[in-house]
Amino acid sequence: MAYIDLNSDVGESFGNWTMGDDAAIFRSVSSANVACGFHAGDPSTIAQTCRDAVAAGVTIGAHVGYRDLVGFGRRFLDCSPTELADDVLYQIGALDAIARAAGGTIRYVKPHGALYNTIVTHEVQAQAVVDAVKAFGSDLPMLLLPGSVALSKAEAAGLRGVSEAFADRAYNPDGTLVSRREPDAVLHDEDTVAANMVRLATEGTLIARDGSTIRTSAESICLHGDTDGAVAMSAAVRRELEAAGVRIRSFV
Amino acid sequence: MAYIDLNSDVGESFGNWTMGDDAAIFRSVSSANVACGFHAGDPSTIAQTCRDAVAAGVTIGAHVGYRDLVGFGRRFLDCSPTELADDVLYQIGALDAIARAAGGTIRYVKPHGALYNTIVTHEVQAQAVVDAVKAFGSDLPMLLLPGSVALSKAEAAGLRGVSEAFADRAYNPDGTLVSRREPDAVLHDEDTVAANMVRLATEGTLIARDGSTIRTSAESICLHGDTDGAVAMSAAVRRELEAAGVRIRSFV
Amino acid sequence: MAYIDLNSDVGESFGNWTMGDDAAIFRSVSSANVACGFHAGDPSTIAQTCRDAVAAGVTIGAHVGYRDLVGFGRRFLDCSPTELADDVLYQIGALDAIARAAGGTIRYVKPHGALYNTIVTHEVQAQAVVDAVKAFGSDLPMLLLPGSVALSKAEAAGLRGVSEAFADRAYNPDGTLVSRREPDAVLHDEDTVAANMVRLATEGTLIARDGSTIRTSAESICLHGDTDGAVAMSAAVRRELEAAGVRIRSFV
Amino acid sequence: MAYIDLNSDVGESFGNWTMGDDAAIFRSVSSANVACGFHAGDPSTIAQTCRDAVAAGVTIGAHVGYRDLVGFGRRFLDCSPTELADDVLYQIGALDAIARAAGGTIRYVKPHGALYNTIVTHEVQAQAVVDAVKAFGSDLPMLLLPGSVALSKAEAAGLRGVSEAFADRAYNPDGTLVSRREPDAVLHDEDTVAANMVRLATEGTLIARDGSTIRTSAESICLHGDTDGAVAMSAAVRRELEAAGVRIRSFV
Repeated sequence: MAYIDLNSDVGESFGNWTMGDDAAIFRSVSSANVACGFHAGDPSTIAQTCRDAVAAGVTIGAHVGYRDLVGFGRRFLDCSPTELADDVLYQIGALDAIARAAGGTIRYVKPHGALYNTIVTHEVQAQAVVDAVKAFGSDLPMLLLPGSVALSKAEAAGLRGVSEAFADRAYNPDGTLVSRREPDAVLHDEDTVAANMVRLATEGTLIARDGSTIRTSAESICLHGDTDGAVAMSAAVRRELEAAGVRIRSFV
Repeated sequence: MAYIDLNSDVGESFGNWTMGDDAAIFRSVSSANVACGFHAGDPSTIAQTCRDAVAAGVTIGAHVGYRDLVGFGRRFLDCSPTELADDVLYQIGALDAIARAAGGTIRYVKPHGALYNTIVTHEVQAQAVVDAVKAFGSDLPMLLLPGSVALSKAEAAGLRGVSEAFADRAYNPDGTLVSRREPDAVLHDEDTVAANMVRLATEGTLIARDGSTIRTSAESICLHGDTDGAVAMSAAVRRELEAAGVRIRSFV
Repeated sequence: MAYIDLNSDVGESFGNWTMGDDAAIFRSVSSANVACGFHAGDPSTIAQTCRDAVAAGVTIGAHVGYRDLVGFGRRFLDCSPTELADDVLYQIGALDAIARAAGGTIRYVKPHGALYNTIVTHEVQAQAVVDAVKAFGSDLPMLLLPGSVALSKAEAAGLRGVSEAFADRAYNPDGTLVSRREPDAVLHDEDTVAANMVRLATEGTLIARDGSTIRTSAESICLHGDTDGAVAMSAAVRRELEAAGVRIRSFV
Repeated sequence: MAYIDLNSDVGESFGNWTMGDDAAIFRSVSSANVACGFHAGDPSTIAQTCRDAVAAGVTIGAHVGYRDLVGFGRRFLDCSPTELADDVLYQIGALDAIARAAGGTIRYVKPHGALYNTIVTHEVQAQAVVDAVKAFGSDLPMLLLPGSVALSKAEAAGLRGVSEAFADRAYNPDGTLVSRREPDAVLHDEDTVAANMVRLATEGTLIARDGSTIRTSAESICLHGDTDGAVAMSAAVRRELEAAGVRIRSFV
């Protein structure tokens, strides 16, 4: 029987500011990337998010990011590897205490935003993030882009690297994402996206934008919940996967 | 044989700004109150501090404070009990991960600055801090002011409350501290301070500023290391305690 | 011919987080309280807000607050008068530069949230805010609660104190606001609120919750725009005022 | 008669953390680069620094930086040009209000740390900083590295670009700075440094590390005050310049 993990970002509110429809996300996903306070997520938001994740039976992951609230962790920051490793470890530890108090525990780590993108190619920062996950001591799996430097370094360090696909993004024939600078980088048609994801879960393939078929090792699908359209698309992906007999379950 | 704990604040640098002479403090104390990032202490400072504490054989405590870097946690902040409890839990968890990666572990919690002073009397915030320590799950002892509401609430929650005395502060006959607004609130004479602390460790008494004798349950002495004079006084207290045959050891 | 000012908070987004429907507010009000970055409002949000205010012909006021992003400036912070005065001056200056670059200028100052509430009674903090407005040098009017210590101190310092009423709040017979802790503190019926505000603008009176009539010196009405209901009520107040022949115009 | 400007960074304390010996710097320099709160400098520190600058007769410049307190503005941040321009304008405005309240005014702008270094070559960020200075409206001169993209863009925008030399840095024969990664990048000998700076002020030349002579358009010399050695060197440079008959004066 086919199965796949669905992951999405949650806990990204901050104080009086809300972000995303976490309640809707918890109905769609099996894994929740919980913000840890550096790019988003104050401690009370994180605590409520962890309680909601536990109540929904959704696996908690640490969504670690650059220390840049006003930039939402979406701007490259040229920090040293020591600073980055310590920042990541700090975030994992903070989330871990809150997750445990909520009756859960961190089961994986996923870098956020500009950090995620940077360590696709940035050797030093990739190693720093891996070092932090190792330093935490539980050898947590890392959720990363297929083919990324970070994935290689995670596996070289003895961590499990889990690849993910992006439901609403177009792919080049070589398996890389179409740049957001190109007009057709983001897919908006629910039916197309859902069909793509069913194919991914059942056949292990993606269709590139030129129509060619790409084999992928993705064990998880990244969904979004920050707009009404994104929530609807996420729900559609889950619905069609289940209709196709695919079981939605965490990769851990 | 008499023994006593000596504690002091460390890890209070932040980024490019340094604070205190932590190396000197680690030579004087048995317990280190490590800043957790909310009033002071960036992750890399915290990591280095934990490594230094482990190397020096000094017990690590979580020095939790209000989220107020520019005010150094010295300004009362009227946060809700939920916010406060979650902020404290977040700080403990962050420090815990870093301490473990350094080969140590958190052994107690001490509130910092305005939070410490507030929960001498503030029932709601005192309970919130105790709730956070309980939520962390290790039932860590709390280092607090004798007679404080926080101490009562900690013990009511099943935590060990450890009382401390302040080496360089004058005491009223009722055992409370002379307010800093009064001119003779702070003691500056090394010999007087050291003699007071030897008396505390060997006889369990303090001399109030009117000359009367106060019985105290203090198991720890708070020293300072943020000025050259404070470092010298801290060293003098340790030296005289050891000369009097008092063993310096952590209360845990 | 009767006239009144309508004011509301704007520019309270922060980075990736949005707050309120500023476009709708700009259609309803004559005065915009623009966040200055300490409780809300990053520089780019502030800049866009000032451009929108200028385009809408709405008067710009500096909405100064405590330095507490995660608390949205809604938590009392026991800062010193020097700290507070310097924080307020810093905020006014920052907004002033951005407002000028947008073709506008600051015409008044309104304290935000917990600072607004604190200086209703807190002599020292009230004086600090007044000192900052004086130090800025343009003797800007201050928008404040009628009867507040801050209003007295502003006027004693030679500033114009402008009183405001709250459209959606119930009043006690003595002219103070019904505490939010009481169940009927907030009014939800658009017709009642609009009728009250027409009476305020045309007769200078408010109806207390016991039905008695209160005379008021309010020259401005505070509206809200942070929820759909608040936006609708604000629009209704403006519509009914205009239908009653009341001219909406800034108090400056 | 020869003359030269001496500039140094001041106002870099933050809350309870102090940085540098500003009192000593004010005795040595004619221009003070005052931190504006984004990389260093809280409002009260800035206010005291401005009062000290006015008392010392030292010209005030806005030392604008990336929004990165923990990194002290020394880490490249990949912000958008809009974000950067608004951040810079915000900082200039905040400092301006405080400087005016202290009886002074901003006379120039100097980018700090990583921002200074980035806009030596980064076209987009250089233009953003220039745009912010233009938007402020006073056409303030900009203090920059000779030959930098920022200098070209400032002058293209109609601003005066002022070049500076670094007293304690070694130069390559082409006039660029020897990279800090090389062992002899920083000069430590007071006599050598002072002689170099006298030559600069009187002949308009620098001696490269290979002994060759470089012509320079530098109108200001950057000194440091963050260590005891830096303070002593700064004092020595001033002393030797004055002994050589060079008048120390602001470039504005």
